[in-house]
Amino acid sequence: MQLLLSTWAEAESYLKTSKGIVMPIGSTEQHGPNGLIGTDAICAEVVARGVGDATGAMVGPTIPVGMAVHHMDFAGSMTLKPSTLIALLRDYVMSLSEHGFERFFFINGHGGNIPSLRAAFYEIYAENRAQRGKGAPDLRCTLVNWWENPEVGRLSRELFGAREGSHATPSEVSLTQFAYPESIKTAAMDPETAAPGGFYDARDFRRRHPDGRIGSAPGLAAPEHGKRLFELAVQAISRQYGSFMAEE
Amino acid sequence: MQLLLSTWAEAESYLKTSKGIVMPIGSTEQHGPNGLIGTDAICAEVVARGVGDATGAMVGPTIPVGMAVHHMDFAGSMTLKPSTLIALLRDYVMSLSEHGFERFFFINGHGGNIPSLRAAFYEIYAENRAQRGKGAPDLRCTLVNWWENPEVGRLSRELFGAREGSHATPSEVSLTQFAYPESIKTAAMDPETAAPGGFYDARDFRRRHPDGRIGSAPGLAAPEHGKRLFELAVQAISRQYGSFMAEE
Amino acid sequence: MQLLLSTWAEAESYLKTSKGIVMPIGSTEQHGPNGLIGTDAICAEVVARGVGDATGAMVGPTIPVGMAVHHMDFAGSMTLKPSTLIALLRDYVMSLSEHGFERFFFINGHGGNIPSLRAAFYEIYAENRAQRGKGAPDLRCTLVNWWENPEVGRLSRELFGAREGSHATPSEVSLTQFAYPESIKTAAMDPETAAPGGFYDARDFRRRHPDGRIGSAPGLAAPEHGKRLFELAVQAISRQYGSFMAEE
Amino acid sequence: MQLLLSTWAEAESYLKTSKGIVMPIGSTEQHGPNGLIGTDAICAEVVARGVGDATGAMVGPTIPVGMAVHHMDFAGSMTLKPSTLIALLRDYVMSLSEHGFERFFFINGHGGNIPSLRAAFYEIYAENRAQRGKGAPDLRCTLVNWWENPEVGRLSRELFGAREGSHATPSEVSLTQFAYPESIKTAAMDPETAAPGGFYDARDFRRRHPDGRIGSAPGLAAPEHGKRLFELAVQAISRQYGSFMAEE
Amino acid sequence: MQLLLSTWAEAESYLKTSKGIVMPIGSTEQHGPNGLIGTDAICAEVVARGVGDATGAMVGPTIPVGMAVHHMDFAGSMTLKPSTLIALLRDYVMSLSEHGFERFFFINGHGGNIPSLRAAFYEIYAENRAQRGKGAPDLRCTLVNWWENPEVGRLSRELFGAREGSHATPSEVSLTQFAYPESIKTAAMDPETAAPGGFYDARDFRRRHPDGRIGSAPGLAAPEHGKRLFELAVQAISRQYGSFMAEE
Amino acid sequence: MQLLLSTWAEAESYLKTSKGIVMPIGSTEQHGPNGLIGTDAICAEVVARGVGDATGAMVGPTIPVGMAVHHMDFAGSMTLKPSTLIALLRDYVMSLSEHGFERFFFINGHGGNIPSLRAAFYEIYAENRAQRGKGAPDLRCTLVNWWENPEVGRLSRELFGAREGSHATPSEVSLTQFAYPESIKTAAMDPETAAPGGFYDARDFRRRHPDGRIGSAPGLAAPEHGKRLFELAVQAISRQYGSFMAEE
Repeated sequence: MQLLLSTWAEAESYLKTSKGIVMPIGSTEQHGPNGLIGTDAICAEVVARGVGDATGAMVGPTIPVGMAVHHMDFAGSMTLKPSTLIALLRDYVMSLSEHGFERFFFINGHGGNIPSLRAAFYEIYAENRAQRGKGAPDLRCTLVNWWENPEVGRLSRELFGAREGSHATPSEVSLTQFAYPESIKTAAMDPETAAPGGFYDARDFRRRHPDGRIGSAPGLAAPEHGKRLFELAVQAISRQYGSFMAEE
Repeated sequence: MQLLLSTWAEAESYLKTSKGIVMPIGSTEQHGPNGLIGTDAICAEVVARGVGDATGAMVGPTIPVGMAVHHMDFAGSMTLKPSTLIALLRDYVMSLSEHGFERFFFINGHGGNIPSLRAAFYEIYAENRAQRGKGAPDLRCTLVNWWENPEVGRLSRELFGAREGSHATPSEVSLTQFAYPESIKTAAMDPETAAPGGFYDARDFRRRHPDGRIGSAPGLAAPEHGKRLFELAVQAISRQYGSFMAEE
Repeated sequence: MQLLLSTWAEAESYLKTSKGIVMPIGSTEQHGPNGLIGTDAICAEVVARGVGDATGAMVGPTIPVGMAVHHMDFAGSMTLKPSTLIALLRDYVMSLSEHGFERFFFINGHGGNIPSLRAAFYEIYAENRAQRGKGAPDLRCTLVNWWENPEVGRLSRELFGAREGSHATPSEVSLTQFAYPESIKTAAMDPETAAPGGFYDARDFRRRHPDGRIGSAPGLAAPEHGKRLFELAVQAISRQYGSFMAEE
Repeated sequence: MQLLLSTWAEAESYLKTSKGIVMPIGSTEQHGPNGLIGTDAICAEVVARGVGDATGAMVGPTIPVGMAVHHMDFAGSMTLKPSTLIALLRDYVMSLSEHGFERFFFINGHGGNIPSLRAAFYEIYAENRAQRGKGAPDLRCTLVNWWENPEVGRLSRELFGAREGSHATPSEVSLTQFAYPESIKTAAMDPETAAPGGFYDARDFRRRHPDGRIGSAPGLAAPEHGKRLFELAVQAISRQYGSFMAEE
Repeated sequence: MQLLLSTWAEAESYLKTSKGIVMPIGSTEQHGPNGLIGTDAICAEVVARGVGDATGAMVGPTIPVGMAVHHMDFAGSMTLKPSTLIALLRDYVMSLSEHGFERFFFINGHGGNIPSLRAAFYEIYAENRAQRGKGAPDLRCTLVNWWENPEVGRLSRELFGAREGSHATPSEVSLTQFAYPESIKTAAMDPETAAPGGFYDARDFRRRHPDGRIGSAPGLAAPEHGKRLFELAVQAISRQYGSFMAEE
Repeated sequence: MQLLLSTWAEAESYLKTSKGIVMPIGSTEQHGPNGLIGTDAICAEVVARGVGDATGAMVGPTIPVGMAVHHMDFAGSMTLKPSTLIALLRDYVMSLSEHGFERFFFINGHGGNIPSLRAAFYEIYAENRAQRGKGAPDLRCTLVNWWENPEVGRLSRELFGAREGSHATPSEVSLTQFAYPESIKTAAMDPETAAPGGFYDARDFRRRHPDGRIGSAPGLAAPEHGKRLFELAVQAISRQYGSFMAEE
């Protein structure tokens, strides 16, 4: 059940059955030669909708632009400053909590969002306590990265082994190819598997990783791999959502 | 051309031909008994994509949640505080301007966003000047509301006359029905045409407009109306985009 | 009744009779060759005091500096960033509301303030709700531009026709000449009526409108015109204030 | 020379002769039984204009509302939070510095503004350095309280001795009576001279100082005293302004 | 070499030899029945000073209060909101970078600080780029948790096995006992080893972990264990600092 | 009793006997040729601990970095922007007030902190009132500078006379020499007593005071003087703390 495709009366009815909501969050940033700039937003969104279908959970609007300061030396990348992203997340959660939502399950498509998400959770808890006092609702926020669960991890390793890498991975590119088959891109990549390694700021990232990939061989991506990854991600994360909602 | 469905190399190529970008912005808020909570985001997005297709303009990610403080007494409505929305818009524009984008054409789906958008434009101009000094790029931001042009206005009047109203209008509901035919909702509405009128805060809005509509009869909505409205909006706004880009 | 010229006991007494307050807001920005930098502040202030005299409303302190980022390429112009102006308005309204004021009627002298004002109203409603909960007072904010009412519009057209223009207008210059006859300025202007047109940021404004006027012929200004405009503005806006206070 | 009563061309001419500007800052807060809520704003404004007349200095717009959190338990008092006042002062100074103003001489009417003013000066210096780098202009900000100079101090002691007190003083009330003779208020006060003493927050202030005065006997105020205080304040502060501008 | 115990001339000399600085960051929060509220600050500080002694690195002032929103239901806990901590870290790094420091090596004593630290790093990179343009210095920030290295991990397991737990651990308590032997506390604990488990906000933390421990048996702590842990932490982290500084 | 060296149960017990807490605040900034960068933090900390020992008051963590924007042209100086310092102080006081602390006694080591501290007190009172309403606790904040009391003043004059100066004074250097005898520095200074005088921003400070001293002869410092100053400061400030706590 998607919030954007519901009426307010349907949202009100849903809240009589559950206080949980799935919140997809992505990023708008370069993903190497054949990866879409929207990769992280697309992956978070399709997995979240799959989880919504599988569990009956309400799925909120996708946050398309995240924290991508380190990608800003590649054309088309967008970023919120961490402080802006924290303010946005605070407003999202605080406004949904006015209606009775209390369990916020973020499905994340971008590693770079994690610090801002976790920082925001505590900003939210602090504000909930400060503004609402003793009777404040019992808000709980958590996040899962769509690729961090045993099922997806196992299939990634099976399909791509060490060529999965850590940015612009064949897994995430496959998932977007499954979701948007009309937007599959091809590009020559040399070397086939990019060098791994860390980075500091945007200039340093580009210096170390000149085509935007980190340790990955996204030329291996294929929509049929994406389909399998999607199915496993939905299965694994639906289970995680169930545990989150069942927690005392 | 959608930014999210492009690679960074494609974005780089695009920038050699144009400094313009279309930015859809909507809202996530109640739209009466049969209107979707995502109405404003959906309308802005589909029209923006249509304009992108018609003009070749790059289309950025849709901002799904806007300024809807006054809708917060209806379940499912979400809002950014104006100050948060301004910060978000500043980050969006400033980060795109790092790549060379200079003309920002916002296609807006929600009247409540207008003050924050216009305030943000000046916040951006001030920051561009303060941080970048004499050599600052010549940034220009503008906004159009998808329904405010002669073509759409004429058809709305023809189809719905005075029953168009001003919130949860049959025009916008029709457009979402065209975009998401599988999510068409029906609901009894009494009276068929809601009372018109202003409002102050959320509590006052609900008191005056108890089912969320203002002056409208969205029961008149139909996907085929939506199709015609879409086509006229794209035609009119593509022309406006052309003028904006041609301006000296 | 001016707040600044009252004692706290008089303010307390006033609050037993009314929850309304008139708040003048202007700007400190260039107004062409013969217009005062304080034009917008002066106009808002004198009209507000006239309305206070006519209606018995309390009149708060004039906000002299508004949002004038686009005038910053002309010497002497001052501006608050929109975010600062919003914070100021929030503090003004929230502190007055602690005493029981609930109806805030802004008389505005500058078009550039409108987005920040409207954005601030929702920032205020959001904060009132968040901090004060269910029992929050029923705050209502509205704004009128002193020149936007049938009476003033009619007289402006009669006096100046198309030479009224949209910035540094003969109407506003006349009003300041009526208010400050000892500060009437004369200046050669070529052409007599400036070219009309829009603008983006400050640099662009100056490029398009080199002496600061937009579409206007402020050489036509005269204090006796100002007197008539003042009287009509007070009459019209006193009526608007009455409606605002009478609203259920 | 008042900025608000000048044209931009006059401001431009002034800047060829001086980089200095006088900035009056007051407060909107209770001033005891017979003191005006605008006392601090009025005093700062009239003295600043006197200094402008005496020295030829440009005089900026009066800041009417300052930091008066501790007066908020008396009707009609308004306050900016210190953080808002700092932001306002930063915007004022930074925007004037774009035109070439470099010496900011604040004439202050309210002790409670001092911390925010001094904090703002360093916020400004930090921003000037961060944004403008090595070539940043040499901005200098200072403040004087209109009553803190030997001349005014001597006359206050002569006129009122120990009954001057520290809030709602006969000196400041006299000065407002001189400035606004039509707004002289009378009120019974018991005791004639209020008890002295400190305070913490607003609730504590009201508990300790129930009619708003601290240690003062403002019943002694008279417009003719105000005239003498005004003249001495202008004389003393004009000298201070001269020293400030002459400083290497 | 401690910054606080150096003169500015010594700092200037140091910068001719190195651009690196070690920055300890702790927290002020409950650490169970026998753990000090300052545990995290103390651990970070003593390890950082040890690393400074071993490597010759400059050691900055310890940040004593971190992000501990979730500990606020235990007396004496203090917290910065994440947004405040991010602002603090930005000011620390930006001001040190004005002198030429470019490599910021945070030694962290508290898991709860990690999101704010990582978010701050990107806030800093964004500000460095925005304010300083093309010639911005190449700032690099990293963090290590004093307990997360093979040496310390091995000894913790050897000494405490599964009774190490995750908050108020015998390892950190031992380290503080080594550092402050005169402040060793004893307390009865039942059960000896606390239950493990997660938590959301402060209320939830206290409900699940009523004496403040998570999964730990800090009764096993001893100053001699602390000494060994200290030595291994210094050894391991000095090596990490060396790698950080050697990185190209 | 130091908060950092207490357990939460000890803090809870303390709160049954007192609502007071001593909060040391310093700065990290140049202190001339032989003064430590940590002088102000060290002085505030040792005096605060002495007061804690003498009175039984709880002593909070030292704030090591304060507002030192004007010292930024000397290597090693660090600063918070005033707005950041205000946010930090607000978080410190508001979080301690959640446990029942109500009397905040800041012992300050740096004149430059005073405006931000005083501004923060009112920011705190405003937030306490806004968020907690009628039942808000009666928070009281005050500050003393360790050197501003008759006892310390008398001894400073006796020891150093006019050579005390106002920055990098022999008194404060003596106190750090007493506290850290292993970190006593020597440096040639010419002239022996630095010139006095004011300053504006950091560049101006360095221009006027090239070795960082203002009016002082810190070559006169000696640890035995520091011991006497320490003892008198503790004695005087303990008395001030007693008065603060006894105040009705």
